[in-house]
Amino acid sequence: MNPITPAKGLKGVVVDTTKLCLIDAERGVLVYRGYDIHDLATHSNFEEVAYLLLYSKLPMRKEYECFCEQLRQNRSVPDVVVEIIERIKDAPPMDVLRTAVSALGAIDPDSGDNSSEATLRKGIKLIAQLPTIVATHERLRRGLKPVEPNPKLSHAANFLYMMRGKPPTEEEAKAIDLDLLLHAEHSSNASAFAVRVTASTLADIHAAIVAGIAALKGPLHGGAAEAVADMALEVGSPERAYEYVREKLARKERIMGFGHRVYRTEDPRARHMRELAKVLSEKSGDKRIFETLLAIEEAMKPLQSKGIYVNVDFYCGCIYYFLGIPKDMYVCMFALGRIVGWVAHALEQYNDNVLIRPLLHYDGPTNLRYIPMDER
Amino acid sequence: MNPITPAKGLKGVVVDTTKLCLIDAERGVLVYRGYDIHDLATHSNFEEVAYLLLYSKLPMRKEYECFCEQLRQNRSVPDVVVEIIERIKDAPPMDVLRTAVSALGAIDPDSGDNSSEATLRKGIKLIAQLPTIVATHERLRRGLKPVEPNPKLSHAANFLYMMRGKPPTEEEAKAIDLDLLLHAEHSSNASAFAVRVTASTLADIHAAIVAGIAALKGPLHGGAAEAVADMALEVGSPERAYEYVREKLARKERIMGFGHRVYRTEDPRARHMRELAKVLSEKSGDKRIFETLLAIEEAMKPLQSKGIYVNVDFYCGCIYYFLGIPKDMYVCMFALGRIVGWVAHALEQYNDNVLIRPLLHYDGPTNLRYIPMDER
Repeated sequence: MNPITPAKGLKGVVVDTTKLCLIDAERGVLVYRGYDIHDLATHSNFEEVAYLLLYSKLPMRKEYECFCEQLRQNRSVPDVVVEIIERIKDAPPMDVLRTAVSALGAIDPDSGDNSSEATLRKGIKLIAQLPTIVATHERLRRGLKPVEPNPKLSHAANFLYMMRGKPPTEEEAKAIDLDLLLHAEHSSNASAFAVRVTASTLADIHAAIVAGIAALKGPLHGGAAEAVADMALEVGSPERAYEYVREKLARKERIMGFGHRVYRTEDPRARHMRELAKVLSEKSGDKRIFETLLAIEEAMKPLQSKGIYVNVDFYCGCIYYFLGIPKDMYVCMFALGRIVGWVAHALEQYNDNVLIRPLLHYDGPTNLRYIPMDER
Repeated sequence: MNPITPAKGLKGVVVDTTKLCLIDAERGVLVYRGYDIHDLATHSNFEEVAYLLLYSKLPMRKEYECFCEQLRQNRSVPDVVVEIIERIKDAPPMDVLRTAVSALGAIDPDSGDNSSEATLRKGIKLIAQLPTIVATHERLRRGLKPVEPNPKLSHAANFLYMMRGKPPTEEEAKAIDLDLLLHAEHSSNASAFAVRVTASTLADIHAAIVAGIAALKGPLHGGAAEAVADMALEVGSPERAYEYVREKLARKERIMGFGHRVYRTEDPRARHMRELAKVLSEKSGDKRIFETLLAIEEAMKPLQSKGIYVNVDFYCGCIYYFLGIPKDMYVCMFALGRIVGWVAHALEQYNDNVLIRPLLHYDGPTNLRYIPMDER
């Protein structure tokens, strides 16, 4: 028998086909359903991109308006879920989000229905509800009353409105909108894959999304933005960046926000995040953090020859900082965008399903004899 | 470029090594950490097998007693979680279990600690708490007060005690004990794999177990026992079994409780479940269900040449029926056993971790041009 070499981490293993997104790791290209991410980032918005990912085409005006209306009408969260959030409000936000979505699944009146139609309906509802859960949690833990969703505002603007109790500027809303759009989908990363594994048992969409949130919580997946923010504060100023990077690399420590399991060149989303961070930082008059990040990126340039570039997370923290989003909610922000991809992955999985059940190679002892306890 | 053939469902793909369990699919052998399942089923019990799976060896008397004490001391569930269960008590039991475990994760005082020591401590606590959650839910939805865990009873006996409010017979406790033991571990099935995917992001043990519960909910994974129970009631008597099977097969429909993604011969756990079902059925004086199942198994014999045999789920429903466990809680019973394997898989994953991040092959359109909405 040949020795078995496990595909640890499933690196390079193609598990299925998808029509959701193409990542060209060498050229740094990201495409959502045929459309380049740069085009979408420049011309589109979160709602339109969500429609594209869910319905495989860009919407006509009428379809778009209908979809936006559906999102607006589904924003509120039942009282029982608000009460659950209230009871665990001091917990880490990702744990609260996971528990709230799990509870939404529990009270879903037709949880047995996994048809495409029902999954799409429930998925859109979840996309609409996630920002309300996160904002409600933030309000409750600060001792404030939750703010009712405002149907006059876009998905992004309404989120900031529910967090703060007052409408954001157009620029702030645009920043969240672009952030969500850029995070909406990224093929089979660990959370989307957890969604697919769960959906492959024909568990319902709520169960699948709960698994996605559970996986996103891990620092190797959703935690980089927070870690980069910590690093920026630790470095403190652009002048210290070079020394910081040099020392870290000498100790063979990892610099957060760099490198990606897939990309071998710059993450195409990073360009837009960098521009956004620049705009917000100039607007605020406080350029220190942004310039510190720029200087860290500059100091890391020698590693580009090894395929190590900034990823989408690198400038996230800086953006969230200027928008007043608490650091422990950065991973939740990721979820607010990625929920769209998760729903689309669940739909793809249900639509042509094979149970995802790999093998593990046993390399422990065999033929051990059971000896009664007192004779051991 | 070669056409890419995705490893759909990861069938036959070895993702890692394990020292937890060996499944010999051809010979129908199941081994937990070197010990044959038949030896363990005959001589051991749930607590000892849990120790074996978590600590890689059978315990000495002192270690065993210490471990049992640790389980007993951790059975209670905080009030806030009982209140959450109360609020969603009319929901499907697996959704309630998932939400309750997610809430336990949220209020975990050291949720940041993923060390082996902390993971083991939290994992043992979860093994102890799961029966309390399920029993509490069953009591609350029947309008009854939850029953406090009884430290004088074994893990299995205490579960039945908390469900019913009175201690079970020795035979009943033994039946649950064996059922949990046989379900404790089964390599990388979809739920254990969801646990590993989630743990691979370095999300904590609660997040990983939540993902496992989410995946187990699916009818392709945890749902067969319930479906077999429905079938037994539909068939109604042994005399009707042959005709039922013949008609189903003629319509190319699946008979639940037969066949396994891995085994090509009889699932070695089925033997013990069959014996258990027989004993309970004789004891009860009501042999109809058991004999119906036996007759269905007999009628299915021609399919054995195709490697289709009964699996572990086939006699489960019959056992749960005689123990008075409500049908919608059958999947929860699976979770009460499998939680041990899930914790052990999370420990293995943390211990030698690579982020699980496979690829999807994009086969959608490329180079689509973004056209403004009103020009489409």
